[in-house]
Amino acid sequence: MGRRKDKLTSNIAWSNADTITVRGLDLPSEILGHMNLGDLAFLQLTGRKATAEESKVFNAIVITLVEHGITPSAIAARMTYMGAPESLQAAVAAGLCGLGTVFVGSMEGASKMLYEALPADKVGTGVDLDALAVETVDAFRARRAIVPGLGHPVHKPIDPRTPRLFEIAAENGKSGEYIALMQKIHAVAEEKSGKMLPINATGAVGAICCEFGFPWKIVRGFGVMARAIGLVGHILEESENPISYDIWQRLEEEILETSGPQK
Amino acid sequence: MGRRKDKLTSNIAWSNADTITVRGLDLPSEILGHMNLGDLAFLQLTGRKATAEESKVFNAIVITLVEHGITPSAIAARMTYMGAPESLQAAVAAGLCGLGTVFVGSMEGASKMLYEALPADKVGTGVDLDALAVETVDAFRARRAIVPGLGHPVHKPIDPRTPRLFEIAAENGKSGEYIALMQKIHAVAEEKSGKMLPINATGAVGAICCEFGFPWKIVRGFGVMARAIGLVGHILEESENPISYDIWQRLEEEILETSGPQK
Amino acid sequence: MGRRKDKLTSNIAWSNADTITVRGLDLPSEILGHMNLGDLAFLQLTGRKATAEESKVFNAIVITLVEHGITPSAIAARMTYMGAPESLQAAVAAGLCGLGTVFVGSMEGASKMLYEALPADKVGTGVDLDALAVETVDAFRARRAIVPGLGHPVHKPIDPRTPRLFEIAAENGKSGEYIALMQKIHAVAEEKSGKMLPINATGAVGAICCEFGFPWKIVRGFGVMARAIGLVGHILEESENPISYDIWQRLEEEILETSGPQK
Amino acid sequence: MGRRKDKLTSNIAWSNADTITVRGLDLPSEILGHMNLGDLAFLQLTGRKATAEESKVFNAIVITLVEHGITPSAIAARMTYMGAPESLQAAVAAGLCGLGTVFVGSMEGASKMLYEALPADKVGTGVDLDALAVETVDAFRARRAIVPGLGHPVHKPIDPRTPRLFEIAAENGKSGEYIALMQKIHAVAEEKSGKMLPINATGAVGAICCEFGFPWKIVRGFGVMARAIGLVGHILEESENPISYDIWQRLEEEILETSGPQK
Repeated sequence: MGRRKDKLTSNIAWSNADTITVRGLDLPSEILGHMNLGDLAFLQLTGRKATAEESKVFNAIVITLVEHGITPSAIAARMTYMGAPESLQAAVAAGLCGLGTVFVGSMEGASKMLYEALPADKVGTGVDLDALAVETVDAFRARRAIVPGLGHPVHKPIDPRTPRLFEIAAENGKSGEYIALMQKIHAVAEEKSGKMLPINATGAVGAICCEFGFPWKIVRGFGVMARAIGLVGHILEESENPISYDIWQRLEEEILETSGPQK
Repeated sequence: MGRRKDKLTSNIAWSNADTITVRGLDLPSEILGHMNLGDLAFLQLTGRKATAEESKVFNAIVITLVEHGITPSAIAARMTYMGAPESLQAAVAAGLCGLGTVFVGSMEGASKMLYEALPADKVGTGVDLDALAVETVDAFRARRAIVPGLGHPVHKPIDPRTPRLFEIAAENGKSGEYIALMQKIHAVAEEKSGKMLPINATGAVGAICCEFGFPWKIVRGFGVMARAIGLVGHILEESENPISYDIWQRLEEEILETSGPQK
Repeated sequence: MGRRKDKLTSNIAWSNADTITVRGLDLPSEILGHMNLGDLAFLQLTGRKATAEESKVFNAIVITLVEHGITPSAIAARMTYMGAPESLQAAVAAGLCGLGTVFVGSMEGASKMLYEALPADKVGTGVDLDALAVETVDAFRARRAIVPGLGHPVHKPIDPRTPRLFEIAAENGKSGEYIALMQKIHAVAEEKSGKMLPINATGAVGAICCEFGFPWKIVRGFGVMARAIGLVGHILEESENPISYDIWQRLEEEILETSGPQK
Repeated sequence: MGRRKDKLTSNIAWSNADTITVRGLDLPSEILGHMNLGDLAFLQLTGRKATAEESKVFNAIVITLVEHGITPSAIAARMTYMGAPESLQAAVAAGLCGLGTVFVGSMEGASKMLYEALPADKVGTGVDLDALAVETVDAFRARRAIVPGLGHPVHKPIDPRTPRLFEIAAENGKSGEYIALMQKIHAVAEEKSGKMLPINATGAVGAICCEFGFPWKIVRGFGVMARAIGLVGHILEESENPISYDIWQRLEEEILETSGPQK
């Protein structure tokens, strides 16, 4: 903030009477019918077309983030829809607002941790990943912080999404030192803590994002776009099989009982 | 609202220690690596897998809605990001909040108009589409309302997305009486008004949604999920090439000049 | 939309190096210490200072809307805060998104109904309010619509806020034909339906807003500003005595049981 | 997160058929007509009634935060309203989403800084405030961070709100060691940097919040509730004197020119 520009620019899209161009491609003739939604997301964010291999891996990581059942974010969206059914978009927005440090942050945190341990320009230079893994885990343990991307309350001893994502990455040339480092960090963390700490889906996605070279700041954005799709599904179900009203009524009764008159 | 249920249900997804199921499919083995993001959106919303043809058409209509340049929604998202760069999700949410009756409503409106003119159970029964088109346009004209899905401030005499979307629909067995009716409505509206009223992209998408049989209430949701992707792209660009600060400063100066002291 | 202006204007506030002016008043010397928050809201919205009487009534109607216990809006805000505790503002925003036609709409609806029955320029001209009330109720009954501002699931036979709000209005010269008409509509509706249909708080507020002459479109805004205050309180409590996690866990367990594997 | 409770509680409000209680007070008879909106906000957040002096000071600090002209937050709200005029609440929500670390964070930051320098249990124990001020400024300077609550792009050499807020605090027994420390920090920071660094409004509010003993985490909430009021005012003006459409059109034209075809 602070310096003024003469002219403002934006290089995503432009259109005139007979042309619509997105990231330099003609939308009707070069995009529609030639790409799937994940590919367009890749184009929108990177400014270039995904290769067939990148398309496979990128679609898989975004898909992983779409649907997680009845999450706090889905509950918020459904509650909002009950009050404002005419504003489906506001219900999705409400659901997205909670995708912060607690639920999506671990993905971003995993990417950041990996980049900090192994900056992009050190990849392929023969860095000792075993040593890096020990260093990284020790640093988190020293400040009593949770290693991002590890551990899951339900999916133990392994999160079933992780081996599959790493398999897809490997089959498509996207399995390199970041995934290797994540796996070593996982092994060290389990050994040092004596606990089951599987690489969870956000850890797997975070590591794969590093293989792509995506800036860690945008990794959260993949979760946000994916959950927007998931939330539209929840709102559609809520419109057909509402559960919000009952959640609300049960809670109101419980609070009245525990916290109401003369309790 | 009003009746209470004994047990709440949700049929989108569930998971236990070693399984994650979305719409009845095992996420790791049956979805990841086998579907693209558009296909998963289709699964999430309809509860069934898209056929290869449906995948083509559905991906195309959602892609059409992702990116429209510097829209009010993109400006709102960028302004929000300037104030809260730590909350990318809230910036996307802010951008989505404005996808209401003015900008995405026409898509929903087009679907609703077509379903009201031609209920699903009348398709294939030999209804006179020409007569329906005249009736429909007359009804809108009588109450001085705009026919949804027609007209565009820039893309005249045709919106280049529309013929391409209809072509993709036709190539994949999704071009039926709803698209035909939309085209007839367009022709009648141009003739009666004497104005250029191209079928715009939201009109084309609305008609194709009817071919799929999607409830008109959820059509807005396709725009919302698509724009979430677009907005993440705008926020990424804003983080690298910010324009919000200048938009704000220019406006503040203009308002101070026109509406400040002693004017 | 559509016509372009040469110069943009805004007449709410401006500032330069040593002055900050809100609605024509010097913020430090003429507002701070001289007004309460409700008075400033009145100034912000109407552009003029409230009289002592208006201040009493306006503060009362906005206060009425601040807090309603564990509402869907409070649940959405708390769920959002659980995921993004670093973004208190986004949790409030999520809670506000649901203040739509179902929960706050009745207030707006009551004002609109009253203005349509009795346009501002007919007040004081001796209109027959009894006839108007019958006409109004009949019109709603004919289209099987609920009369806005009447009825409450819990507060029966009277909503205790309503007589108090009308009392405050009367004590301060704000009880006129709109409140009288609302009361007559209530009486007619109860008689014709044979049900208890108390004037609820939103009906009382809607009627008083008409006494002020506020445009019905902004009436919802009073609810929105009031609930923002209420939601900050809920988030503060959630930070000290969290309930979202348990709501979520209970629900996830119930859904897993009813809708999980092999049910 | 993590531990489950048997029973959920909430001590803000409850109601039954003939009673509505907020923070232990009967809403109709003990609140309506007896409090202004700022007092109710105080009650909602602290659980107790403000004294007459506290009411004066608290109303003043929240009022200070209501209106700042055409801010990024107001622009986001107006843009959102253009697209979804039927969802006033979503436009306010969009405007609130940007009240994060950049614009409202300095208030929270000022409170946090003051509490860290002078924990509540040290107040009145004769701590050397001059030494504390030097230590505090040095610590920020050492890590090249901006001292929160100091400096303003326009209001120099003083922010006119600050002396007035401190005056109101002093007149009402709320001027103690936190305000004194803030002033000393300001003096030290100006001397060490050689720049004009007035205590800005958020710094003044942050210091006064410490005098009240409010937890620093909730300080942002005062800004959020205040801006909700301000934003309703902006949306009302936008509905009568729209500027969003022109902002959008100008920007689209500029971007087309700088970043469109063959540039």
